[in-house]
Amino acid sequence: MKPYRVALVSIGNEVLSGDTLNTNAHWLAQQLAHQGALIVEQRTVSDTVPAIIETIAELRAKTDLVITTGGLGPTHDDATVAALCEYFHDELILHQPTVEYLKQYTAERGRALTNRLLHQAMVPATAQVLPNRVGTAPGLLFERTDGASVMVLPGVPREMEVIMLEGGLAWVRHAITAGNFDVVAESVLVTAGIPESELADRLEPIRVQLPPAVELAFLPSSFVVRVRLRAIAPRQEAEQQLQTAVSLIKPLLDAALITDRNERLVEVLQRECIARNKTLAVAESCTGGMLGAEITSVPGSSEYFLGGLICYADAVKIHFGGVRPETLALYGAVSQQTVEELARYIRAAYSSDLSVAISGIAGPGGGSEDKPVGTVWIAIADEKGLQSQRFFFGNDRQTNRQRACQAAILMLLTRLRSA
Amino acid sequence: MKPYRVALVSIGNEVLSGDTLNTNAHWLAQQLAHQGALIVEQRTVSDTVPAIIETIAELRAKTDLVITTGGLGPTHDDATVAALCEYFHDELILHQPTVEYLKQYTAERGRALTNRLLHQAMVPATAQVLPNRVGTAPGLLFERTDGASVMVLPGVPREMEVIMLEGGLAWVRHAITAGNFDVVAESVLVTAGIPESELADRLEPIRVQLPPAVELAFLPSSFVVRVRLRAIAPRQEAEQQLQTAVSLIKPLLDAALITDRNERLVEVLQRECIARNKTLAVAESCTGGMLGAEITSVPGSSEYFLGGLICYADAVKIHFGGVRPETLALYGAVSQQTVEELARYIRAAYSSDLSVAISGIAGPGGGSEDKPVGTVWIAIADEKGLQSQRFFFGNDRQTNRQRACQAAILMLLTRLRSA
Repeated sequence: MKPYRVALVSIGNEVLSGDTLNTNAHWLAQQLAHQGALIVEQRTVSDTVPAIIETIAELRAKTDLVITTGGLGPTHDDATVAALCEYFHDELILHQPTVEYLKQYTAERGRALTNRLLHQAMVPATAQVLPNRVGTAPGLLFERTDGASVMVLPGVPREMEVIMLEGGLAWVRHAITAGNFDVVAESVLVTAGIPESELADRLEPIRVQLPPAVELAFLPSSFVVRVRLRAIAPRQEAEQQLQTAVSLIKPLLDAALITDRNERLVEVLQRECIARNKTLAVAESCTGGMLGAEITSVPGSSEYFLGGLICYADAVKIHFGGVRPETLALYGAVSQQTVEELARYIRAAYSSDLSVAISGIAGPGGGSEDKPVGTVWIAIADEKGLQSQRFFFGNDRQTNRQRACQAAILMLLTRLRSA
Repeated sequence: MKPYRVALVSIGNEVLSGDTLNTNAHWLAQQLAHQGALIVEQRTVSDTVPAIIETIAELRAKTDLVITTGGLGPTHDDATVAALCEYFHDELILHQPTVEYLKQYTAERGRALTNRLLHQAMVPATAQVLPNRVGTAPGLLFERTDGASVMVLPGVPREMEVIMLEGGLAWVRHAITAGNFDVVAESVLVTAGIPESELADRLEPIRVQLPPAVELAFLPSSFVVRVRLRAIAPRQEAEQQLQTAVSLIKPLLDAALITDRNERLVEVLQRECIARNKTLAVAESCTGGMLGAEITSVPGSSEYFLGGLICYADAVKIHFGGVRPETLALYGAVSQQTVEELARYIRAAYSSDLSVAISGIAGPGGGSEDKPVGTVWIAIADEKGLQSQRFFFGNDRQTNRQRACQAAILMLLTRLRSA
């Protein structure tokens, strides 16, 4: 087994200290997996020359490629280039095409080309420049024959992504092919309704029959467990073994199988709504728009999603959501009655086929003995009528809201499929 | 300088491969920083015994505490406990309180206490158990005198967080005090309107005058650059030096200073709306609810946020957002006219003091020559009238939407402050 091994290094105290969420490593891992690479390790280190050098040296010893992000900016806390120069015994030279680019970049924005900015055109002599079309710090590639190559990218997500999409990923793909490496192929079966440990028990007899290159993992999250199958082998063999494994496992999942693609619930909902020609409108109280945001995060959502109401205040529930004041007075905003009135009214007012209403106590305040923080009511309306359900999600405001959205999407999907 | 050095290890192929975004390391880093600890490194490694052992050994050599998350579940791909047993030459014993807890946990949920689940009560003999009140895998603490201690936590975010909040963090705080460590104190000044490199130039003369323990960093993100000041010293000294540094820097920031607390723009907006007794309603097209979700992510948002309209479809803009069909026909949904009609109507209909409307081309489809993907119009209405602005955010759908929300919040905040 000879996969193409990649390590990711995030450089910067802002990531280390928790000021910035590390979405770069996540994005890179996904993109590199699509090319068939194996991510063997990820590290976040401080933006100091010794820390960067030590990390690069350690990771080069066990990989084929090290990719760094961050520490390329124009300020004094950006140490990545200095560290690589020292590590590779390289020296900085002025890269004329980058100078030209920076002139144009600043001119277009009415900004001065300061010495500080111009310094971004100083690049190590042995590195190839990966042009950055959307920012000032170019990417660098140290293509090496004495061990792992090193790719150096800026930390601003969009700049990093553009550089990879416009050259970096193609270089990786070519390196995998040219070096005759095995590829990492994977398949994901998304399931709902069976806890992880029961799912593992159910699949245990099959697991030992799986083709040798296939490895099985369970990835639980709100309401779903993703069953991930991964094979590392020459491309054709890997894909064949995966197919065999999927066909062994699928029958055991039965109705618990939501999708055999590695996608989010909301993507499945969109496909199935569009296939059935159903439109959707929402009424959101505690989620405050988060369900709409999740739905519209998928390109093409306008083909089935009309919009809806953010009914955060009770007055909005009454005036724009069709909730009777008596209902709020008698049962409260977080009740079966309220979400059902909302769902019924929104479906009629927006002329949608489906509607969903969410009202809950997100926390940290607002809980009571019989309605503790984390209590959420969800109702769905369709041509057959209403369906509603109560959930208890726990103490954390943001988690509650996310789970409420996933629960609503799963309820909609289940209702669609049973229609 | 003797800070309490912590390394974070995320264990699991699902994080490594980009299937799961690593929010655990982010949350832990923030919480540990509040205790005054210094995060020196973060790694994500595969869930195999050799990888875990090598990582723990390397990180214990340069830290006071190693915290792992993940790999504690009930399935075969959970290798953390086995790795730690081997590394510490420890053996598993049955932990009776955990058995009792698992009995109760499964009984309450109508689930069977399978052997697979019962195995979670097998813990290394030399480890203390950190009870997990919300899941089945307890946390573990190897308190060591021969080097760094090791804290072992489950990978499910909520379980990890509950264990830390109910004991883990207090243990860290106590270790810092008992060991007479220096603390890491930090202050963040959030700025808007000045690019990172110009900000760095402006602060350069001050930077060299800063107290010796204070380190300055610039953290740019959409529309804001956070200036982070950090001091590592005995607690009182650290705080004093930070205060000196902040008082040197603040006058140079002038109107660019949004807040001197480390908070999000939306938190500042909430505080200032409530202080001025202003209510807010929204109309969201391309953001689909994301602005409302951001606003309501802050506890207490119901004190100023009423709700609003997700007007994704044109029919919704017309029927519930007060946009005239002629306006859509003449100028299109992404136009100054449309967002101004929306903002004016929503403010009147919802009886809010402020309103904001967003309409844009999020992408990837829908762009044209004069309205490329990334074009976003935002309008604000208040008692003085309307203000609108066009933005170009670029190609990425999710980034566009996030930037549109931050732009809207910054516009609201600026308008409030200039009133």
